[in-house]
Amino acid sequence: MSRTSLADHNCSFAKAVEILGDKWTLMVLRDAFYGVTSFNGFRKRLGIAPTVLSDRLQKLCDAQVLTRQRPKPEVERFTYRLTDAGRALFPTMIALLQWGDRYISGPGNEPVTIFDERHRAPVQPVAVQARDGRYLTTADISFGPGPGAEKRSRN
Amino acid sequence: MSRTSLADHNCSFAKAVEILGDKWTLMVLRDAFYGVTSFNGFRKRLGIAPTVLSDRLQKLCDAQVLTRQRPKPEVERFTYRLTDAGRALFPTMIALLQWGDRYISGPGNEPVTIFDERHRAPVQPVAVQARDGRYLTTADISFGPGPGAEKRSRN
Repeated sequence: MSRTSLADHNCSFAKAVEILGDKWTLMVLRDAFYGVTSFNGFRKRLGIAPTVLSDRLQKLCDAQVLTRQRPKPEVERFTYRLTDAGRALFPTMIALLQWGDRYISGPGNEPVTIFDERHRAPVQPVAVQARDGRYLTTADISFGPGPGAEKRSRN
Repeated sequence: MSRTSLADHNCSFAKAVEILGDKWTLMVLRDAFYGVTSFNGFRKRLGIAPTVLSDRLQKLCDAQVLTRQRPKPEVERFTYRLTDAGRALFPTMIALLQWGDRYISGPGNEPVTIFDERHRAPVQPVAVQARDGRYLTTADISFGPGPGAEKRSRN
Protein backbone atom coordinates (compact mmCIF):
# COMPACT_ATOMS: atom_id res chain seq x y z
CA MET A 1 0.00 0.00 0.00
CA SER A 2 1.43 3.31 -1.03
CA ARG A 3 2.34 5.62 1.79
CA THR A 4 0.29 8.33 0.11
CA SER A 5 -2.81 6.19 -0.38
CA LEU A 6 -5.72 6.84 1.93
CA ALA A 7 -7.52 3.66 0.90
CA ASP A 8 -6.33 1.79 3.99
CA HIS A 9 -8.00 4.24 6.32
CA ASN A 10 -11.33 2.84 7.52
CA CYS A 11 -12.87 6.27 7.09
CA SER A 12 -15.46 7.38 4.55
CA PHE A 13 -13.97 10.86 4.51
CA ALA A 14 -10.51 9.51 3.63
CA LYS A 15 -12.00 7.34 0.90
CA ALA A 16 -13.91 10.31 -0.54
CA VAL A 17 -10.76 12.43 -0.37
CA GLU A 18 -8.76 9.76 -2.18
CA ILE A 19 -11.10 10.31 -5.15
CA LEU A 20 -11.92 14.01 -4.86
CA GLY A 21 -8.98 15.59 -3.02
CA ASP A 22 -7.44 17.21 -6.05
CA LYS A 23 -8.05 20.67 -7.39
CA TRP A 24 -8.51 19.78 -11.05
CA THR A 25 -10.82 16.91 -10.15
CA LEU A 26 -12.98 19.35 -8.22
CA MET A 27 -12.91 21.92 -11.02
CA VAL A 28 -13.96 19.29 -13.58
CA LEU A 29 -16.81 18.37 -11.25
CA ARG A 30 -17.80 22.02 -10.89
CA ASP A 31 -18.12 22.30 -14.64
CA ALA A 32 -20.02 19.02 -14.86
CA PHE A 33 -22.55 20.59 -12.45
CA TYR A 34 -22.66 23.63 -14.74
CA GLY A 35 -23.64 21.26 -17.55
CA VAL A 36 -20.37 20.87 -19.43
CA THR A 37 -20.18 17.44 -21.06
CA SER A 38 -17.44 17.49 -23.70
CA PHE A 39 -13.68 17.15 -23.39
CA ASN A 40 -13.19 20.40 -25.29
CA GLY A 41 -15.79 22.13 -23.17
CA PHE A 42 -13.90 21.27 -19.99
CA ARG A 43 -10.57 22.08 -21.59
CA LYS A 44 -11.57 25.53 -22.80
CA ARG A 45 -13.33 26.59 -19.61
CA LEU A 46 -10.57 25.39 -17.32
CA GLY A 47 -7.47 26.20 -19.39
CA ILE A 48 -6.19 22.79 -18.37
CA ALA A 49 -3.58 20.64 -20.13
CA PRO A 50 -5.27 17.86 -22.14
CA THR A 51 -3.21 15.17 -20.39
CA VAL A 52 -4.30 16.41 -16.97
CA LEU A 53 -7.93 16.67 -18.04
CA SER A 54 -7.84 13.21 -19.58
CA ASP A 55 -6.40 11.78 -16.36
CA ARG A 56 -9.02 13.45 -14.14
CA LEU A 57 -11.92 12.42 -16.37
CA GLN A 58 -10.65 8.85 -16.35
CA LYS A 59 -10.37 8.81 -12.56
CA LEU A 60 -13.86 10.25 -12.15
CA CYS A 61 -15.23 7.60 -14.53
CA ASP A 62 -13.32 4.86 -12.69
CA ALA A 63 -14.85 6.09 -9.43
CA GLN A 64 -18.31 6.09 -11.07
CA VAL A 65 -18.77 9.77 -10.37
CA LEU A 66 -18.93 10.51 -14.09
CA THR A 67 -20.06 8.25 -16.89
CA ARG A 68 -18.56 8.36 -20.37
CA GLN A 69 -20.83 7.72 -23.31
CA ARG A 70 -20.67 7.92 -27.05
CA PRO A 71 -23.89 9.65 -28.07
CA LYS A 72 -23.81 8.13 -31.55
CA PRO A 73 -21.95 4.96 -32.51
CA GLU A 74 -20.37 6.65 -35.51
CA VAL A 75 -19.05 9.63 -33.56
CA GLU A 76 -15.68 9.41 -31.85
CA ARG A 77 -16.44 12.14 -29.36
CA PHE A 78 -17.47 11.08 -25.84
CA THR A 79 -19.75 12.90 -23.47
CA TYR A 80 -19.20 12.95 -19.72
CA ARG A 81 -22.14 13.19 -17.36
CA LEU A 82 -22.65 12.99 -13.62
CA THR A 83 -23.88 9.64 -12.33
CA ASP A 84 -26.25 9.39 -9.36
CA ALA A 85 -23.16 9.29 -7.13
CA GLY A 86 -21.83 12.38 -8.90
CA ARG A 87 -25.09 14.29 -8.49
CA ALA A 88 -25.07 13.31 -4.82
CA LEU A 89 -22.03 15.56 -4.42
CA PHE A 90 -24.35 18.55 -4.85
CA PRO A 91 -24.44 19.48 -1.12
CA THR A 92 -20.65 19.17 -0.85
CA MET A 93 -20.13 21.36 -3.90
CA ILE A 94 -22.59 24.03 -2.79
CA ALA A 95 -21.20 24.02 0.77
CA LEU A 96 -17.70 24.61 -0.61
CA LEU A 97 -18.91 27.36 -2.96
CA GLN A 98 -20.74 29.09 -0.11
CA TRP A 99 -17.66 28.83 2.08
CA GLY A 100 -15.63 30.52 -0.66
CA ASP A 101 -18.33 33.19 -0.97
CA ARG A 102 -18.22 33.97 2.71
CA TYR A 103 -14.55 33.63 3.56
CA ILE A 104 -12.69 34.41 0.32
CA SER A 105 -14.87 36.47 -2.03
CA GLY A 106 -16.58 38.06 0.98
CA PRO A 107 -20.16 39.24 1.59
CA GLY A 108 -21.46 41.51 -1.16
CA ASN A 109 -18.82 40.21 -3.52
CA GLU A 110 -20.24 36.77 -4.42
CA PRO A 111 -19.66 36.11 -8.13
CA VAL A 112 -22.59 33.70 -8.48
CA THR A 113 -26.01 33.38 -6.85
CA ILE A 114 -27.68 29.98 -6.68
CA PHE A 115 -31.42 30.29 -7.09
CA ASP A 116 -34.22 27.99 -6.12
CA GLU A 117 -36.01 28.00 -9.49
CA ARG A 118 -39.51 27.76 -8.05
CA HIS A 119 -39.35 30.96 -6.02
CA ARG A 120 -36.38 32.58 -7.74
CA ALA A 121 -34.85 33.06 -4.28
CA PRO A 122 -31.30 32.24 -3.20
CA VAL A 123 -30.88 28.83 -1.58
CA GLN A 124 -30.16 28.51 2.13
CA PRO A 125 -26.62 28.15 3.40
CA VAL A 126 -25.85 24.43 3.56
CA ALA A 127 -25.74 23.38 7.21
CA VAL A 128 -25.49 20.38 9.49
CA GLN A 129 -28.84 19.80 11.16
CA ALA A 130 -30.18 17.54 13.88
CA ARG A 131 -33.18 15.32 13.22
CA ASP A 132 -35.37 18.00 14.83
CA GLY A 133 -33.98 20.63 12.45
CA ARG A 134 -31.67 22.40 14.90
CA TYR A 135 -28.55 23.82 13.30
CA LEU A 136 -25.44 22.13 14.66
CA THR A 137 -21.87 23.27 15.08
CA THR A 138 -18.84 21.16 15.91
CA ALA A 139 -19.58 21.78 19.61
CA ASP A 140 -22.97 20.06 19.31
CA ILE A 141 -21.86 16.76 17.87
CA SER A 142 -19.81 13.73 18.81
CA PHE A 143 -18.34 10.90 16.80
CA GLY A 144 -19.18 7.31 17.62
CA PRO A 145 -18.52 3.96 16.00
CA GLY A 146 -20.76 3.20 13.03
CA PRO A 147 -21.92 -0.23 11.83
CA GLY A 148 -18.72 -0.60 9.79
CA ALA A 149 -16.40 0.32 12.66
CA GLU A 150 -15.38 -3.22 13.54
CA LYS A 151 -13.06 -3.45 10.57
CA ARG A 152 -9.39 -3.13 11.29
CA SER A 153 -8.61 0.54 10.98
CA ARG A 154 -5.75 2.96 11.19
CA ASN A 155 -8.13 5.78 11.94
CA MET B 1 -0.17 33.90 -13.20
CA SER B 2 0.60 30.22 -13.12
CA ARG B 3 -1.37 28.11 -15.55
CA THR B 4 -2.26 25.82 -12.66
CA SER B 5 -3.46 28.60 -10.36
CA LEU B 6 -7.19 28.98 -9.93
CA ALA B 7 -6.87 32.39 -8.29
CA ASP B 8 -7.73 34.22 -11.51
CA HIS B 9 -11.10 32.53 -11.77
CA ASN B 10 -13.83 34.86 -10.49
CA CYS B 11 -15.46 31.92 -8.74
CA SER B 12 -15.73 31.27 -5.03
CA PHE B 13 -15.60 27.53 -5.65
CA ALA B 14 -12.31 27.83 -7.56
CA LYS B 15 -10.86 30.00 -4.82
CA ALA B 16 -11.91 27.51 -2.15
CA VAL B 17 -10.46 24.66 -4.21
CA GLU B 18 -7.18 26.52 -4.60
CA ILE B 19 -6.84 26.28 -0.80
CA LEU B 20 -8.55 22.99 -0.06
CA GLY B 21 -8.24 20.90 -3.23
CA ASP B 22 -5.52 18.61 -1.94
CA LYS B 23 -5.92 15.30 -0.20
CA TRP B 24 -3.47 15.90 2.63
CA THR B 25 -4.88 19.34 3.27
CA LEU B 26 -8.33 17.77 3.66
CA MET B 27 -6.99 14.99 5.88
CA VAL B 28 -5.25 17.51 8.15
CA LEU B 29 -8.55 19.37 8.36
CA ARG B 30 -10.41 16.16 9.18
CA ASP B 31 -8.10 15.58 12.10
CA ALA B 32 -8.38 19.21 13.23
CA PHE B 33 -12.15 18.62 13.43
CA TYR B 34 -11.43 15.47 15.46
CA GLY B 35 -9.54 17.69 17.92
CA VAL B 36 -5.94 17.03 16.94
CA THR B 37 -3.78 20.10 17.61
CA SER B 38 -0.12 19.06 17.60
CA PHE B 39 2.28 18.45 14.74
CA ASN B 40 3.09 15.00 16.10
CA GLY B 41 -0.59 14.24 16.58
CA PHE B 42 -1.29 14.90 12.91
CA ARG B 43 1.86 13.10 11.82
CA LYS B 44 1.13 9.92 13.75
CA ARG B 45 -2.54 9.69 12.80
CA LEU B 46 -1.96 10.37 9.13
CA GLY B 47 1.35 8.57 8.56
CA ILE B 48 2.40 11.63 6.58
CA ALA B 49 5.92 12.82 5.79
CA PRO B 50 6.90 15.71 8.10
CA THR B 51 7.77 17.95 5.14
CA VAL B 52 4.35 17.40 3.57
CA LEU B 53 2.58 17.98 6.89
CA SER B 54 4.59 21.11 7.55
CA ASP B 55 3.71 22.45 4.10
CA ARG B 56 -0.02 21.78 4.50
CA LEU B 57 -0.17 23.27 8.00
CA GLN B 58 1.61 26.38 6.72
CA LYS B 59 -0.81 26.73 3.81
CA LEU B 60 -3.82 26.30 6.09
CA CYS B 61 -2.41 28.94 8.45
CA ASP B 62 -1.69 31.28 5.51
CA ALA B 63 -5.29 30.84 4.40
CA GLN B 64 -6.49 31.58 7.95
CA VAL B 65 -8.25 28.22 8.18
CA LEU B 66 -5.95 27.16 11.02
CA THR B 67 -4.19 29.32 13.55
CA ARG B 68 -0.81 28.46 15.00
CA GLN B 69 -0.14 29.36 18.60
CA ARG B 70 2.53 28.73 21.16
CA PRO B 71 0.63 27.78 24.32
CA LYS B 72 3.49 28.84 26.60
CA PRO B 73 6.23 31.29 25.63
CA GLU B 74 8.94 28.94 26.89
CA VAL B 75 7.69 25.93 24.89
CA GLU B 76 8.82 25.49 21.29
CA ARG B 77 5.87 23.32 20.33
CA PHE B 78 3.00 24.98 18.44
CA THR B 79 -0.64 24.07 18.53
CA TYR B 80 -2.89 24.29 15.47
CA ARG B 81 -6.54 25.09 15.86
CA LEU B 82 -9.45 25.80 13.52
CA THR B 83 -10.28 29.48 13.09
CA ASP B 84 -13.87 30.65 12.58
CA ALA B 85 -13.31 30.18 8.84
CA GLY B 86 -12.00 26.68 9.53
CA ARG B 87 -14.97 25.74 11.69
CA ALA B 88 -17.25 27.07 8.95
CA LEU B 89 -16.06 24.16 6.79
CA PHE B 90 -18.10 21.85 9.03
CA PRO B 91 -20.99 21.38 6.54
CA THR B 92 -18.54 20.73 3.69
CA MET B 93 -16.64 18.15 5.74
CA ILE B 94 -19.77 16.35 6.93
CA ALA B 95 -21.28 16.37 3.43
CA LEU B 96 -18.12 14.76 2.05
CA LEU B 97 -18.02 12.17 4.86
CA GLN B 98 -21.69 11.31 4.28
CA TRP B 99 -21.06 10.98 0.54
CA GLY B 100 -18.23 8.54 1.28
CA ASP B 101 -20.53 6.65 3.66
CA ARG B 102 -23.19 6.27 1.04
CA TYR B 103 -21.23 5.74 -2.15
CA ILE B 104 -17.95 4.15 -1.02
CA SER B 105 -18.32 2.49 2.38
CA GLY B 106 -21.97 1.74 1.59
CA PRO B 107 -25.11 1.58 3.75
CA GLY B 108 -24.67 -0.58 6.85
CA ASN B 109 -20.92 -0.24 6.57
CA GLU B 110 -20.36 3.32 7.81
CA PRO B 111 -17.23 3.42 10.01
CA VAL B 112 -18.33 6.45 12.02
CA THR B 113 -21.67 7.84 13.18
CA ILE B 114 -22.04 11.55 13.87
CA PHE B 115 -24.36 12.17 16.77
CA ASP B 116 -26.32 15.21 17.77
CA GLU B 117 -25.20 15.30 21.41
CA ARG B 118 -28.49 16.59 22.78
CA HIS B 119 -30.62 13.69 21.57
CA ARG B 120 -27.85 11.20 20.91
CA ALA B 121 -29.33 10.72 17.43
CA PRO B 122 -27.48 10.70 14.12
CA VAL B 123 -27.42 14.03 12.30
CA GLN B 124 -29.42 14.54 9.12
CA PRO B 125 -27.83 14.12 5.72
CA VAL B 126 -26.45 17.50 4.70
CA ALA B 127 -28.63 18.89 1.91
CA VAL B 128 -29.27 21.95 -0.21
CA GLN B 129 -32.53 23.55 0.84
CA ALA B 130 -34.73 26.34 -0.42
CA ARG B 131 -35.74 29.19 1.87
CA ASP B 132 -39.02 27.36 2.53
CA GLY B 133 -37.11 24.22 3.54
CA ARG B 134 -37.71 22.17 0.39
CA TYR B 135 -34.83 19.84 -0.47
CA LEU B 136 -33.26 20.79 -3.76
CA THR B 137 -31.43 18.82 -6.42
CA THR B 138 -29.42 20.14 -9.33
CA ALA B 139 -32.64 20.13 -11.38
CA ASP B 140 -34.28 22.62 -9.00
CA ILE B 141 -31.68 25.36 -9.11
CA SER B 142 -30.16 27.82 -11.51
CA PHE B 143 -27.05 29.93 -11.40
CA GLY B 144 -27.24 33.68 -11.80
CA PRO B 145 -24.80 36.55 -11.48
CA GLY B 146 -24.07 37.54 -7.88
CA PRO B 147 -23.15 41.00 -6.59
CA GLY B 148 -19.47 40.32 -7.38
CA ALA B 149 -20.14 39.15 -10.93
CA GLU B 150 -19.15 42.38 -12.64
CA LYS B 151 -15.45 41.70 -12.14
CA ARG B 152 -13.53 40.55 -15.14
CA SER B 153 -13.72 36.77 -15.08
CA ARG B 154 -12.58 33.73 -16.96
CA ASN B 155 -15.46 31.70 -15.57
